[in-house]
Amino acid sequence: MNNKDDTIAAIATPIGIGGISVIRISGKGAIEKIGKIFKGNNALSHAKSHTAHYGKIVCGDGRTIDEIVATIFRSPRSYTSEDMVEISCHGGYYVTQAILQAIIHNEIRLAEPGEFTKRAFLSGRIDLVQAEAVADMINASTEIYHRFAVHQLEGRLSNEINEIRDKLVNLCSLLELELDFSEENLEVVKKAQIKTEIESITRTIQQLSRSYSYGKLYREGAKVAIVGKPNVGKSSILNTLLNENRAIVTEIPGTTRDIIEEKFIIDGALFSIADTAGIRTSKDIIESMGIELAKKKINIADIILIVVDPTQDIESEDDDILELIGNIKSNIVGNKLLIVNKIDIATPKSDMNNYIKKFLLTPIYLSTKTGYGLNKLKRAMFSVVVESQRTDYHGNSIIINGRHKECLRKAEIHLAQALEGTVRQASNEFIVFDINTAINDLSEIIGTIITEEILNNIFSKFCIGK
Amino acid sequence: MNNKDDTIAAIATPIGIGGISVIRISGKGAIEKIGKIFKGNNALSHAKSHTAHYGKIVCGDGRTIDEIVATIFRSPRSYTSEDMVEISCHGGYYVTQAILQAIIHNEIRLAEPGEFTKRAFLSGRIDLVQAEAVADMINASTEIYHRFAVHQLEGRLSNEINEIRDKLVNLCSLLELELDFSEENLEVVKKAQIKTEIESITRTIQQLSRSYSYGKLYREGAKVAIVGKPNVGKSSILNTLLNENRAIVTEIPGTTRDIIEEKFIIDGALFSIADTAGIRTSKDIIESMGIELAKKKINIADIILIVVDPTQDIESEDDDILELIGNIKSNIVGNKLLIVNKIDIATPKSDMNNYIKKFLLTPIYLSTKTGYGLNKLKRAMFSVVVESQRTDYHGNSIIINGRHKECLRKAEIHLAQALEGTVRQASNEFIVFDINTAINDLSEIIGTIITEEILNNIFSKFCIGK
Repeated sequence: MNNKDDTIAAIATPIGIGGISVIRISGKGAIEKIGKIFKGNNALSHAKSHTAHYGKIVCGDGRTIDEIVATIFRSPRSYTSEDMVEISCHGGYYVTQAILQAIIHNEIRLAEPGEFTKRAFLSGRIDLVQAEAVADMINASTEIYHRFAVHQLEGRLSNEINEIRDKLVNLCSLLELELDFSEENLEVVKKAQIKTEIESITRTIQQLSRSYSYGKLYREGAKVAIVGKPNVGKSSILNTLLNENRAIVTEIPGTTRDIIEEKFIIDGALFSIADTAGIRTSKDIIESMGIELAKKKINIADIILIVVDPTQDIESEDDDILELIGNIKSNIVGNKLLIVNKIDIATPKSDMNNYIKKFLLTPIYLSTKTGYGLNKLKRAMFSVVVESQRTDYHGNSIIINGRHKECLRKAEIHLAQALEGTVRQASNEFIVFDINTAINDLSEIIGTIITEEILNNIFSKFCIGK
Repeated sequence: MNNKDDTIAAIATPIGIGGISVIRISGKGAIEKIGKIFKGNNALSHAKSHTAHYGKIVCGDGRTIDEIVATIFRSPRSYTSEDMVEISCHGGYYVTQAILQAIIHNEIRLAEPGEFTKRAFLSGRIDLVQAEAVADMINASTEIYHRFAVHQLEGRLSNEINEIRDKLVNLCSLLELELDFSEENLEVVKKAQIKTEIESITRTIQQLSRSYSYGKLYREGAKVAIVGKPNVGKSSILNTLLNENRAIVTEIPGTTRDIIEEKFIIDGALFSIADTAGIRTSKDIIESMGIELAKKKINIADIILIVVDPTQDIESEDDDILELIGNIKSNIVGNKLLIVNKIDIATPKSDMNNYIKKFLLTPIYLSTKTGYGLNKLKRAMFSVVVESQRTDYHGNSIIINGRHKECLRKAEIHLAQALEGTVRQASNEFIVFDINTAINDLSEIIGTIITEEILNNIFSKFCIGK
């Protein structure tokens, strides 16, 4: 374990060629240590907080490495709450490395991933949810995910968690107060009231917990499956969606390498369709792979596009599809979209209208050739992941972090045990114990109670220099 | 052409995922314009120069895009000499783009490549050599090339050019003074003295001009060719050099794509060996491709490693190699290195020592197996590109820019014409004209006389945000 009293340094900007790079230094004596290799009109050691100083970084033999601007942040008014220097230098690979080398010769060590943010958390400047939001902010590739990251960075999820926690703490106080008077057999608060309160808090936790399925949609993108007989135009629909809205995220170096899915963005919401190989085979979902495989594909999908070609005759496969769709269970409201394609070509066959009605879905009439109906389809897809949740979660937070979801799940279990205690008239001590455990679960989200191991696990996923 | 009075903005840090990104804004009203989308404790419009301000960037509907630090630089104390703001935000791709979008909605346009540095030049804060050194600084991938970039950034090459220029200006003054007194037939300065002075200045220009061949070595790396019979160990030597010293530059995204050469670094100096295919075929330089092709390869090489295996018998091919090497002409001093390889295996054949002596080169005894002699070889290679030039160019500048070399070449031609004028006792007007043309050639290096077209050509090669 590296000592948290060390002075640390790292290149904070992305690796590559650019106009400028920034090197961050934080810790006790950071300003004085950098002052030794800085030559400018002003000595850094006397510089006020939040001031920028033009000068040169020189190496041991006095040779200039670069002309830079050093910005001084004095404790506690800095990102880490410690003394900090930010060096803005020319953005070349060699020159940036050369400055970093000159810095770490100077009683300063390389920072670990996330160590700056970890120090901000350990100093109490931000809580753990906010610290994690920093990573979410950096990784956000869509508008909506970015909004949730800002929401958490501003401490709004933390506030909600704290409110729930406070309610539980109050509940405990009442129950403990009763314990103090237990010999007098005084009932400070009715068990029924305790029960009602726990139930209410549990519902709030459950609602937050459920929001994770949406949070996941925003982070990873909504998985889209396209179902239909051969030649109904599945590939055309897919290509139209991909070409018009292909996610810019796939063009970022470093993120592309791991992508095995085609991603595209509609109005800031992210969608994904398995990998390219998957796209090709999805064409054959009914024709060759059979209903079983189609079922599997559909079951992991968040949105299902059912494509019907009204110029084709109704065949037995059409009934297979109808049955398949009818059996789908999903937590996501309105995630089946019926597309009647090729409406530019011809009028529907006579029995087609009856068939379409059996889906009990409002069809979207589409022509990939003319573009008719495309916007309606995109709005519908967007609604599935975004608008449908507005009713449920309006104004409330969305959980986008698996760790938070897990803590909420544990809290829910412990509250269920507390509730059971009230039902079977258990002694207050037992109920208080369960509620306290749930409080700890919630504290783990904010980071007021946290193990070193969990902390390290969280911050090791950060990038260097943050 | 974009107006130079516009307020401009660009992401100045490399594209990718990192801890922080920096967005630069420059131009009249830059601070006030950014102030409109900045929410912090202090209003930016009243902020002093060189101060940093924590706050939020908000979009039109008041929603927070990110928590940032805005650093204020007031004209003329900034990179461009104009009012500037540098926004340091979270280093995510999406968030950085979102802030940039919010900025350019605000009477601010996207900067062109190099536009910040161009403004620094146009304002007179730096000259053209220093502006070009910024790009060299960013692109530098080795210590030595970086040193030359710093040298030019600090204005030392500019000073030398200005000194030469001043001497020519003085010369012109004298000649013009004489013109004023021409009717009195007064010889202010002797023609012989003028001639001597022009010759001296020409030598200085020639020396600078010659240094370009070294500058090129540092920029592109010294081209290495390995010559030898089959099985003398050429590939082993090559692999040893590549594996131990492979250039880290090949690991930088964006620079690798154009590389068709294997590069390696010895003590900060860059070396290159044609592309991988070239390396493989270089093995066959004598055996299959014939002497003619070998000659071509050797003629474009800056350093030639001649490999001899003392355990083999002397054959006719050895004489071919000897003849080939004997005919090499090169401007680079001591660029032929004779390697006697496999010295771990056996004692040399009796006639080998005589053969080795014929090269008139001090042999480097090598064993790639044990590593014996490897350091000596590397020192020798390093010396060819670095140390041999110290005698010639110690303390003086090295020309690393093709444009500078071309201007020097033109100045040399015009001085030669002036010199010819003094020899054939031409009227001072003609000599002054030629010297003035040479002065203009030198002014073009510094940028005091420059066309818009050349300027645009120079800055278009810069990265965005610099």
